[in-house]
Amino acid sequence: MPTNPIYLPELREMIAENNVEEMYEFCKALHPAQTVEFMDGLEPVEIWAILRHAEKPVAAEIFSYFDEDIQVRIVESAPRDEIADLIEHLPSDDRVDILQSTDKDVVAELMPLMEAEDRSDIQRLSAFADGTCGAEMTTDFVRLRANMTITEALQEIGRQTEEIETVYYLYVVNEADHLVGLVSAKQLLHNLSRPHTLIRDLMKRDLITVRADEDREVAAREVAKFDFLAIPVVDANRHMLGIITHDDIMDMVQDEATEDAYRMAAIGPMEESYLNAPFWTIWKSRVMWLSLLFAAELATFTVMAHFDAELSTVKVLALFIPLVISTGGNSGSQAATLITRALALGEVRMRDVLRVLRHELLMGLALGVSLGAIGFLRAFLTPDHILSGTNRSLLSVTICLTASLICLFGTVVGAMLPLGFKRLGFDPGMASSPFVATFVDVVGIFIFFTVARIFLI
Amino acid sequence: MPTNPIYLPELREMIAENNVEEMYEFCKALHPAQTVEFMDGLEPVEIWAILRHAEKPVAAEIFSYFDEDIQVRIVESAPRDEIADLIEHLPSDDRVDILQSTDKDVVAELMPLMEAEDRSDIQRLSAFADGTCGAEMTTDFVRLRANMTITEALQEIGRQTEEIETVYYLYVVNEADHLVGLVSAKQLLHNLSRPHTLIRDLMKRDLITVRADEDREVAAREVAKFDFLAIPVVDANRHMLGIITHDDIMDMVQDEATEDAYRMAAIGPMEESYLNAPFWTIWKSRVMWLSLLFAAELATFTVMAHFDAELSTVKVLALFIPLVISTGGNSGSQAATLITRALALGEVRMRDVLRVLRHELLMGLALGVSLGAIGFLRAFLTPDHILSGTNRSLLSVTICLTASLICLFGTVVGAMLPLGFKRLGFDPGMASSPFVATFVDVVGIFIFFTVARIFLI
Repeated sequence: MPTNPIYLPELREMIAENNVEEMYEFCKALHPAQTVEFMDGLEPVEIWAILRHAEKPVAAEIFSYFDEDIQVRIVESAPRDEIADLIEHLPSDDRVDILQSTDKDVVAELMPLMEAEDRSDIQRLSAFADGTCGAEMTTDFVRLRANMTITEALQEIGRQTEEIETVYYLYVVNEADHLVGLVSAKQLLHNLSRPHTLIRDLMKRDLITVRADEDREVAAREVAKFDFLAIPVVDANRHMLGIITHDDIMDMVQDEATEDAYRMAAIGPMEESYLNAPFWTIWKSRVMWLSLLFAAELATFTVMAHFDAELSTVKVLALFIPLVISTGGNSGSQAATLITRALALGEVRMRDVLRVLRHELLMGLALGVSLGAIGFLRAFLTPDHILSGTNRSLLSVTICLTASLICLFGTVVGAMLPLGFKRLGFDPGMASSPFVATFVDVVGIFIFFTVARIFLI
Repeated sequence: MPTNPIYLPELREMIAENNVEEMYEFCKALHPAQTVEFMDGLEPVEIWAILRHAEKPVAAEIFSYFDEDIQVRIVESAPRDEIADLIEHLPSDDRVDILQSTDKDVVAELMPLMEAEDRSDIQRLSAFADGTCGAEMTTDFVRLRANMTITEALQEIGRQTEEIETVYYLYVVNEADHLVGLVSAKQLLHNLSRPHTLIRDLMKRDLITVRADEDREVAAREVAKFDFLAIPVVDANRHMLGIITHDDIMDMVQDEATEDAYRMAAIGPMEESYLNAPFWTIWKSRVMWLSLLFAAELATFTVMAHFDAELSTVKVLALFIPLVISTGGNSGSQAATLITRALALGEVRMRDVLRVLRHELLMGLALGVSLGAIGFLRAFLTPDHILSGTNRSLLSVTICLTASLICLFGTVVGAMLPLGFKRLGFDPGMASSPFVATFVDVVGIFIFFTVARIFLI
């Protein structure tokens, strides 16, 4: 969230003077996301000193645009009864996220202050595991019945929508709360001239749904594919549980993109934004990964120490080490990224594993031959004084074969790892991590000296 | 797009028998995205043989879910008059994209067959540069006037919406077509009981807009931040030009994520999906980048050849080369990714450059000292037979100092490059490319041997 501190003195003055009317007006003057920008820099108690004067739905909307760490600090510091009231007005998915990060004692004090219905809603949603559709969904949506007329449906919308985020998709359920259809607000607006039409005759019946226990990425994929505004979440018996809305999907897609990029660059997850996070928090997140990578790369030292004799005999080999190493890392991360994205976009499935293997074996060979040719040329052109007695042709063959083999190895490992990680229940994107590149480095050096031993020693 | 070939024989039979009714029914039975899955595998002429029997708006919807290369092949192969008619029904942003990839002669034949209004709309939209908001927007949205009542607005919506994608945001313009406000369908539904209310009294006036010549990422950021369904696009004089809808933003975000991941892994852009693309197309896209990286990495050979004498004198240095190289690459890509994401999310702006520089200088030092300590330890524990006479303490100091300096260098270069690329008008994500890592490798080797020369030779 960018910040905009120019208004902070005025806000602090309003609080000092307890100017209730101005605070009320400030809260409703702007888009809630902008209100939050203007308040950035205030302490949680100051934020609440202003927000408590807004109308409850307005306060809830503004509150929901704060970063989660600030939300939690407000919840923990403000008077319990006021916060319980606010929580009742929050979207059902947001409040569960916040309460799960809040101090357990505070939550224990807040729960009895809420209405029974909100309480049981929170308990139900908390049960879904992180990263599932159930954990992302909101239970705030409009339920209609198939035998309603358009007029009755509009009345029902008016009754239900006070705290409801989206009225653009209206879900039709039967007596057992099974999802049976969907009408869009667009359809209602188009048929206003025929107010006695039954919802049954307007509704779409073949709905695309996700199950609450499915990975949230499934919901993201379906919403992106079908251009939906929201997707309904059902249980195994097709009971309607909730919906995931387009804005949550967008946040999800952004989060996953950041997560993927961070993992590719070995950065631990960070809650706060770059310039706001304390120096030593960022340092900790970075130094841990860099040190681990550094330590893992030490294995190259061990492997090379093992080949110390070869290195002493054919000194020119040392000059090709960076080249050899980078080939494995580059071809591996190329293959890993291609397969990871193809998995994420649904272009490759687990059952395609043999097809991918065959494809990448051939690709690794085709790529390897090309790199090998360049390597051969470079080695063949090594100046005499650097060769210092090593056989030019044999050195060239060594470099050519090494580059080809390492490229083949990197490509196949890079392509198979995302599928392997997925099979084991991990994130396929882990294959693009520099740890995999480090592993390929070590194997690469081993291949290099083994080939060199055959041809040159 | 995943494919579903189980229905292809039936579809081919329908075409062979010219079973118009069944083709008509097939086109409206499913969600258009699913219809496209079922048709995948048909030739463009076969696809059109089916689609031409659907109602025009249905055909247009299905058509818009095909990949662009198939769309273009259909446009180029089907009868001109039928395609001109289809194009008139396509969303205004989609049809411009398609026509820009279509054979120029075909476009020249199609344009006169369209109505003057569509023709000038296409000409106007084609004028916006790729990647701008103007190029992403659609001109299909509902225009209202401030002095309309709710009843009149609903009638106007009914009149305008036949080909309009979204009725959820309705834009209020004045006589000069300046954007003056926005009403949501939600507001209309909530106020149906007061049909004489004026739009003026409902509409929101402080609107967040983007200019047509701004980068489309600005629109993506605003829509994600404010949870909008669409964002209006205006010109410099606040004339209302069009809107960008949430589904286009979602596609954009996905595209950018794929693009970023590809660039980090040095894969050229690809139009087709992984398993559908021909082998040699993928090979070309991959071998080009791998060869370029390989060639760039050859610079390490040149630098090391320059230090051949040092390498011969202190042979143990060779064993530390992979370690030294990986340190630069890892710390550089870590910093580059952090700053690139922070730029993309709006957490860091161009004016923060000095703050980032100071931050990363300190961070590079703090990280470097940590890695240097590990390096010192490892070097100090080198077995005697590998040291072969090199001074243990001086070697340890050399490795420690080298690791620290390279980490500092990688971190600062990695952090500054995204800002530099952005200033020059390039994509900041280019800094995470392996080419930058290769550059850091080369400099790293230079630092290594320079330090070694001072302490060991």
